[in-house]
Amino acid sequence: MTENLKIGIAGLGTVGAGVLKILGVSGDLIAQCCARAIDVVGICARDRARERGLGLAGAAWFDDAIALAKDPTIEVFIELIGGSDGVALDAVRTALAHGKHVVTANKALIALHGAELGALAEAQGVALNFEAAVAGGIPIIKALREGLSANRVSRVYGILNGTCNYILSDMEETGRSFDAVLKQAQELGYAESDPSFDIGGIDTAHKLAILASIAFGAQVDFSHVHIEGIEYISANDIIVARELGYAIKLLGLACRTDQGVEQRVHPCLVKSDDAIAAVNGVVNAVVVESDQLGRLVMEGAGAGESPTASAVIADIIDIARGLVLPPFLRPSEFLRSEAVAPMARHEGAYYIRLTAIDRPGVMAVIAEDLAHEGVSIDTIIQRGAERADSVPIILLTHQCRESVMVKALARISSHDVIVKPPRMIRIEQL
Amino acid sequence: MTENLKIGIAGLGTVGAGVLKILGVSGDLIAQCCARAIDVVGICARDRARERGLGLAGAAWFDDAIALAKDPTIEVFIELIGGSDGVALDAVRTALAHGKHVVTANKALIALHGAELGALAEAQGVALNFEAAVAGGIPIIKALREGLSANRVSRVYGILNGTCNYILSDMEETGRSFDAVLKQAQELGYAESDPSFDIGGIDTAHKLAILASIAFGAQVDFSHVHIEGIEYISANDIIVARELGYAIKLLGLACRTDQGVEQRVHPCLVKSDDAIAAVNGVVNAVVVESDQLGRLVMEGAGAGESPTASAVIADIIDIARGLVLPPFLRPSEFLRSEAVAPMARHEGAYYIRLTAIDRPGVMAVIAEDLAHEGVSIDTIIQRGAERADSVPIILLTHQCRESVMVKALARISSHDVIVKPPRMIRIEQL
Repeated sequence: MTENLKIGIAGLGTVGAGVLKILGVSGDLIAQCCARAIDVVGICARDRARERGLGLAGAAWFDDAIALAKDPTIEVFIELIGGSDGVALDAVRTALAHGKHVVTANKALIALHGAELGALAEAQGVALNFEAAVAGGIPIIKALREGLSANRVSRVYGILNGTCNYILSDMEETGRSFDAVLKQAQELGYAESDPSFDIGGIDTAHKLAILASIAFGAQVDFSHVHIEGIEYISANDIIVARELGYAIKLLGLACRTDQGVEQRVHPCLVKSDDAIAAVNGVVNAVVVESDQLGRLVMEGAGAGESPTASAVIADIIDIARGLVLPPFLRPSEFLRSEAVAPMARHEGAYYIRLTAIDRPGVMAVIAEDLAHEGVSIDTIIQRGAERADSVPIILLTHQCRESVMVKALARISSHDVIVKPPRMIRIEQL
Repeated sequence: MTENLKIGIAGLGTVGAGVLKILGVSGDLIAQCCARAIDVVGICARDRARERGLGLAGAAWFDDAIALAKDPTIEVFIELIGGSDGVALDAVRTALAHGKHVVTANKALIALHGAELGALAEAQGVALNFEAAVAGGIPIIKALREGLSANRVSRVYGILNGTCNYILSDMEETGRSFDAVLKQAQELGYAESDPSFDIGGIDTAHKLAILASIAFGAQVDFSHVHIEGIEYISANDIIVARELGYAIKLLGLACRTDQGVEQRVHPCLVKSDDAIAAVNGVVNAVVVESDQLGRLVMEGAGAGESPTASAVIADIIDIARGLVLPPFLRPSEFLRSEAVAPMARHEGAYYIRLTAIDRPGVMAVIAEDLAHEGVSIDTIIQRGAERADSVPIILLTHQCRESVMVKALARISSHDVIVKPPRMIRIEQL
């Protein structure tokens, strides 16, 4: 057996505690797989008093993550502090600069600073592993970085945020409003007290930026992601979509187009009989489409103590086994800066929700505006009034360019009969 | 860059040709990922004349796979000959004995000789990789051996044979008979001219034995697998099952029970709303249930030139990157010989098809026999006669022990009114 691998863990929240528990329960198995044991020799967390009962007897306590990151006793620095900047960033930079391998579950950090940190890791000849940062326990980074490394990916997409998927699934199942379901999700611990990162799509966008980088061999660049959240989805949208044969899901989606790489996070109408429509609750799912393999689907627990800790430990095991790969599949020197396909040039079909005064001639006005911009209508649904004086009108369009759709909506909005800003949900062909 | 990795390929059928094509098309990308190029320096195939147009100019030709396996110019031996014994086995043994890494797509070889070959590879400090042997392009071996290595697996199951799944899906869709669909599958190239390995469940059993070994840390032992094929499934079984809310799928399934590990391949009734019921056509799907991660589903192309070649190349890339793991997750010394749970002690619910003479009192006889053995009936369906003088009777039972079910069926069969051997399909709770 090789010498034990000495690791230091910074951050003992849910995931950190999960990592220690698994090392406690399955340390013997893990040592067999690695032909060496994993020793936690250093720990750093905010509140020392809280961390009892985790079997930390053998580990030195550090009050300062930076001190742990450069401590000569550790070979691997496990960053579970969180946050894209501040201590997490400083500590990871320090660890890499001191030649330590780094494992992190921090998607914001990797999405925003992955290019810099990846290059630093490579220059130092150490690993920077972040399996837990995307889709929790699902080994999607490993699948892309290793299992599919002979493939050219054309599209990767998925349900990457359990909170949003729980909310949308529950709205579909119960017919309740977004606000009511969010409140319950918060009570159940499925949503944060400040849920804006989740419901606003930011969390999904962090994960997508990382996936897209590995899938397309491009520098990770969070600013390339177009982001919309689910806050404006109404119970009625979900009901109407279902009647039309669609479910509404928040997807993160990256694909190659003639205009460059599209990276976008927004609610989508997906066909009810597509597998992704059946992914409900807090489950995550990722679909990768590539030249050799075709379509690969991976589905599993996208969050939670044990699944996330399982991914962190898989990353540590890789290091214990001596596997050090370029963090983003290819060495930094080969990572391209891909052209960003502008959303204005996105081509797709749209679900449009208008709210209009219930008056003869309204539909004619709308139809004329759409025709004027060259948008062709597939389906129109108008029924029962929300309020006595206004009616919701739902349109499904045929395929058109997004800039054209936006112009048509601006034209429609300019009429007095339209009493609320129109809403547009993209219909995604999967 | 490190020196190029020199490989020799034995067997230039579909998969071998696919490997050469991918190396031709994506060799540059692969070289970037590995920081070294992959060179095909030796080739061996049955018919030299056939192998034109594959860009083999730089490779030496071997008429004998054994000679290639021990040739000093190669570092990795790619076995794509097929067959569990004979040349394939001899060549792999030779390659390992000569300190070459081995990559193979040969499930029969690994299922039957994996324990010996794995131990030999470990003793020699070389890799024995077989991602392509199970579920084609789906990186399930990597997921189990690396991504989930911190987990204790409780159950692994899946649709592992595209031919059977195509036949059952098509029978469900079209209502045609097994024989008619098999014939068409052969014409379309989805089934071999001798389809017995596929439809008899042998192919699935090879793959399951490999999965179970890695999942449970046990010596791979093909003789531990209980195997039934799909030949006796009738169009009527599928129609009735659907009416009752089930689909019929050929599953390979391994799980821990109090009696030991169950490894079994047979047609199953699965709930129509379960994700696995929606996996149709030649697609494969694998589900892994484990303590930390919960449920992980992987779905994709389980066969075909490009997906299988993609998996072979992923295995080569691992070697090029210096990754050498124990072939069955843990070193051979830690692989246990797990107790085999006898099928007689399997507990489950059953779908029973009886064919009886249409005469008063028949149902009373059947019900009495079942009651005598303590089998409790959930549903009975009897309708329209197959022939004028006999009727099919379908029973769904509640949970019982298989030995009891078998005894009850023997008792029922002994009556003159039962005109065909009863058929039993297990109902699987997923």
